[in-house]
Formats: sequence, structure tokens, C-alpha cells
Amino acid sequence: METILNLLSLSEARRAEFLSAAQGQEQLFFDNGAQPDEADYARATVILGNPPADMLRRCRRLKLLQTRSAGLNPYDQPGVLPEGAELRSASGAYGHSVSEHLFALLLALMKRLNAYRDQQRGGAWRDLRAAKSLLNARVLCVGTGDLGSSFALLCKAFGAQTAGVRRNAELAAPGIDAMYGMDALDALLPLADVVTLTLPQSPDTVRLLDRRRLLLMKPDAILLNGGRGSAVDCGALAEVLAGGHLWGAGLDVTEPEPLPSDHPLWRQERALITPHVAGGNHLPDTADRVAAIALAHLRDYLAAAQDEGK
Amino acid sequence: METILNLLSLSEARRAEFLSAAQGQEQLFFDNGAQPDEADYARATVILGNPPADMLRRCRRLKLLQTRSAGLNPYDQPGVLPEGAELRSASGAYGHSVSEHLFALLLALMKRLNAYRDQQRGGAWRDLRAAKSLLNARVLCVGTGDLGSSFALLCKAFGAQTAGVRRNAELAAPGIDAMYGMDALDALLPLADVVTLTLPQSPDTVRLLDRRRLLLMKPDAILLNGGRGSAVDCGALAEVLAGGHLWGAGLDVTEPEPLPSDHPLWRQERALITPHVAGGNHLPDTADRVAAIALAHLRDYLAAAQDEGK
Repeated sequence: METILNLLSLSEARRAEFLSAAQGQEQLFFDNGAQPDEADYARATVILGNPPADMLRRCRRLKLLQTRSAGLNPYDQPGVLPEGAELRSASGAYGHSVSEHLFALLLALMKRLNAYRDQQRGGAWRDLRAAKSLLNARVLCVGTGDLGSSFALLCKAFGAQTAGVRRNAELAAPGIDAMYGMDALDALLPLADVVTLTLPQSPDTVRLLDRRRLLLMKPDAILLNGGRGSAVDCGALAEVLAGGHLWGAGLDVTEPEPLPSDHPLWRQERALITPHVAGGNHLPDTADRVAAIALAHLRDYLAAAQDEGK
Repeated sequence: METILNLLSLSEARRAEFLSAAQGQEQLFFDNGAQPDEADYARATVILGNPPADMLRRCRRLKLLQTRSAGLNPYDQPGVLPEGAELRSASGAYGHSVSEHLFALLLALMKRLNAYRDQQRGGAWRDLRAAKSLLNARVLCVGTGDLGSSFALLCKAFGAQTAGVRRNAELAAPGIDAMYGMDALDALLPLADVVTLTLPQSPDTVRLLDRRRLLLMKPDAILLNGGRGSAVDCGALAEVLAGGHLWGAGLDVTEPEPLPSDHPLWRQERALITPHVAGGNHLPDTADRVAAIALAHLRDYLAAAQDEGK
């Protein structure tokens, strides 16, 4: 007998599908703001959603944790999940939302909409001259999972060339014209007109874009971060921008978050900052995409469990 | 014997091509800031570029005026061109530049980058919640020439559906899924998530989007104007926005231009205004696209003139 804790945000139609998929099993829904209690966690075999990490030690029966997030942090850290429990993410649900937001930041910087918006406050009709275009631009995607790959596809629709960097350069990804290993990063940075980070949190990615690598970028390149804020040294970025290097930087994530109101990055004219809103539930269909992925994974799990039980 | 006044901005390579195309004919280049004098205009048979309209009365020998602009205004007004002179535009040179800029305005509004930029000044990390997406959005392109068609293609790459309005609905255009006549405008406005204007100046298009039609739009629709400012009643738009109607408006053109610094449109949070910079020479390749089009038209003209002379 399974006990499923369903913490997802669900439409009526999706809830009916979850009920039907887990027919005959116990399924508790928490989509109205209520939280499971300790007894619920203690008997859960499946959790759909992102519970507090410290609760998972109590989940001795847990076989599957299906997150609503694209990343697995903090659940993939040693000792968080009970032994033998499977961990699956909602990777695929956020690519559209995050890549569209990153693309908005990119085009805004290329067309100087940040500076035009600042001028608008004073009612100033002033041509700021040169803009940039995606046509024939060289876009380097650091991280080529769902987010990076979706972003690369949008760039190609605008006529850009794309390169990607990932741990295993043998794996292709949609939208990436040429794939390289992480060891090629320093050689690729000076060639790119746009560098886009969509990396998960990991010890390898913390401050990957430090001052040295920021200065390897072209003087008029654009940096975007839509993965985890820790991948960029935000203090160094503010200094590099203040020194006149880079065309601009578009950040939906920073370190720390929230970015303190006195952080120098806020005051850089060529930085465009949004408060970690590219993903989440800012688009009406994202929650439904998460639910669809979780439903498919739940069906896989239940079918396998039934096979084992036979 | 021809006399060609070449007022275009040219690379060395393009200049050589113009010289070669008009071999044996007189060609005067004015790409260094100098202006033709009255005697030059008096003997010109071809002008490449946008001369002052009142100079054209002196051009009694003029056979071809090839503009560097996509629009033909003011040269297409009665009495401006000498009788028998042909008028050709650089339509096709600006589609990429203008459509990319309009798309930047659209995505910026969808993702509330205007409001996030305003927050940035105060160092405020505050989630403004719901954003919009192009995916499955209904985009209505009013004007489906080079600019509207290019814009529609970009929208389709992001998963939108497109409809177009033009004088002759029998003529299809790339990127437009369904084409309608101008008489369908009032029926189409209430259905569109995005309405994009890329109309040339004409008596038919002045204040086409007046208060009544602005109020026909969906309460959360987005209006874009990248054609001529006169197509929108900017005073009515400011009032409509102030009243809470529309998600936002992105304008690269206004009436009048420059928009006076005390115009209420500047102060609308949900208006995003750029000072007529979507086209022009803000991208490095636009001048070259204009030159390529003018060169092709010049060759056509010279070949036809030679045939007639035979």
C-alpha cells in the first residue's frame, strides 16, 4: 500500500488525473496551503513537491521524491534522502518560462531599453545610437540542460550561432550548434557576443564567472544568468561593469538573494536585474507543466511497484 | 548621359560596386557629410538617398529617386516629384532591425522589465508576480509589409498565432497565419493579446487607433507601434493606460516627435517609449542593406535606360 503526499498546485482536471493514476492507493492533497504533519511524512512512500529538507529524515518508507523544481538541490546532498529513495525533478517544466525571460533581458540590453527606461522618467527623447542584434551573433550557453537548450533555440530563431559547454561534450542538445567540455570555457569566452549561464548549484559551478573570466569576455559582450546566482561573482561583476567592460549584464539570480539594497550591482546602468522570477509560477501554464511531468513519473513508479509486487 | 547623386552611407566595397554599376556615367558621392548644390540637383537624373523634398522641384531631369527609407513619405505627395520620375524605397532593409526592436519592447512588457527597472533604482528585490508569454498568444499585425511580416515571423518562432490586416486581404505575407481586410479591424481587436502597428503614413492610417479602438482591445492586451506615430492617438492612449486598461504599450514612434517632455505618456508606468530608434542606422548592417537594395534598383534602371537608348 502506497501513501502519496501530493503537494503540487493542481487544476481540477489534473487532480482527477492524479486520483485516477493512484486508484486504490492513499493519496493526500495539500494544494490549499495546508501542510502535511509528521505522521503524514512518516508513512509517505511518495512525495510530489518540495517538502522541507529536514522533514525527509522522518520519511523512512519513502521510495520516490518528485520535486516541483527543475533543480534537485538540496535533496541531492548526502544524507538528506532515506536510502533507496529515488529522486526525480520537474526538469522540462521551466525551459520555456526561463528561456523567454532570459531572452527578454538579452533583447532589452541589446536595444538599450534599460537606459531608455531611465530617460523616460525625465521625459527625454534622446537617441542613444548603436544597438545590437542577434543576427549572426555568437551565443555561448554554459549549461545545456532544458533551460540552456530552450534558450539556444530562441537565439537560433533570431539568426544567432550557438555553442554550448557541458560536462560531457559527447552529449548533443537541441539548439546547440557546437558542444564543448567545461575545459574549453576559457578559450570560448573571448569569442562570444552573449554568454548565458543556466547552471545548477554545485561545488563546480560556484563563482565559475569570477573576475578573471569576466575579463576574458569581449569588451562589448552581454552576460546573462538564469541558473543559480552563485555562478557569478556579483561583486566582481559590479566592478567590471563600473570599469566600462561588457555591454551589459542581465541577471535573474544573484548571490546573495535577495540582493541587498546597498549592493553596487543595483546601481550599474548596464545591469538589468529581476528578482528570481524567470521560472516559478509567473506563467499560468508552468504549474500545469510541473503537474504533467510529476503525473508521468508517478505512473512509472506505480507500474514498476506493481510489477515488483507480482 | 546620366548624373547620379549618391547620398548613401557606403563601405569602400559598396562604393566600388556603385562605380562599377554606373561605369561611363557621372556619379557624385556625398557620403562624407557634404551636400549637393543646386546645380547638382538641376542636372541629376538619379538620386540615391533622401534629399530635402523642396529641392526636388529643381530636378527637372530626374528619372529615379531611390530612397534610403522604407517609407516614401513625403516624396509620394502630389507635386513633389517631377512628372515621369520613378520613386522606389528601401523596403526590405529595415524589417530585421525594426522587428527585433519591437519584439524587445514586447518581451520587456510581458516580463515587466519596465517596472523591474524602476524598482532597480531603489535596490528593491520585489516579485511583481504574473508575467506573460508569447506561447499560444494571439498577435494581430496591422500592416503586413516588410516590418509587420518580419515581426510576425519572430512571434511564430516563440509559439504565437498571427493574424494580419491589410488593404488587400487576398495578398498573403510570410509569418501571417490568417489575413483580413482593414474592415475586419474592429472585430479582430477584442481577440488579440498583442496588437502591432507597422503602418506607413497615409490619410487612412492617421489616428487609426483612437480611444474607441483602444478600448476595443482586451483589458490585458499589449499595443506596439513601430510604423508612424500618427497611427495612435497618444493622448487617448495615456488616458486609457491611466484608467487601468491594457497590460502595456511599447512605442518607438509617437505623435508628435519628439514627444514633449511634459506629455502624460512619458509618466505611464506601463508605457515603454524609445525615441524612433528601431530602424535608422542603429545596427551596423542596416546601411549596407539599404545600399544593396539601391544598387539593385540602380542596375535595373540603367539596364532599362540602355535598352531604350538602343
